[in-house]
Amino acid sequence: MTRAEEQVLLQELKSDYRHILINYFTTTDKTLKHYIDKFINAVFYANIPVPQVIEIHMELIDEFSKQLKLEGRSDEALLDYRITLIDILAHLCELYRCSISQ
Amino acid sequence: MTRAEEQVLLQELKSDYRHILINYFTTTDKTLKHYIDKFINAVFYANIPVPQVIEIHMELIDEFSKQLKLEGRSDEALLDYRITLIDILAHLCELYRCSISQ
Repeated sequence: MTRAEEQVLLQELKSDYRHILINYFTTTDKTLKHYIDKFINAVFYANIPVPQVIEIHMELIDEFSKQLKLEGRSDEALLDYRITLIDILAHLCELYRCSISQ
Repeated sequence: MTRAEEQVLLQELKSDYRHILINYFTTTDKTLKHYIDKFINAVFYANIPVPQVIEIHMELIDEFSKQLKLEGRSDEALLDYRITLIDILAHLCELYRCSISQ
């Protein structure tokens, strides 16, 4: 993958992860599962280091936090998104584990 | 691994994870890193499914919560231990990923 291709992929991952975060606690929409699977598979097949996944999470939470502060609202609820990250890491980890076990 | 051996291993893992949780935010002790590495390596080599790791976490948090309630204290601070779980899952996931990449 060229540097430019990597940047495009990371931007796509960030966009998908943003969608996951925004909808994680509010939607019963089945497309959320589709987005989570798409994100996890893309990270897996591109062999993205886990710290980069955490960086995407942190950057988005930071963005959301700034937005909430601009609106004069508390950003305390953002802590709940740690559950989303746990969910994503658990699925990703299980994908790697099962691909070795096979 | 026999069923009895698996039970012994899970009890050892739970004991190590309890030590990690209790000391995670309070110690600067280098043995904490040792416990984290020991726990992650044991999970990796025994090929423990990730949902079982999360179960160990949930069981311990539940135990701590009950203890705090018995003492009439708030268990709100226990939510911070999600960071510990994220840390553990991230390291475990990276161990699996790198073992495939090699």
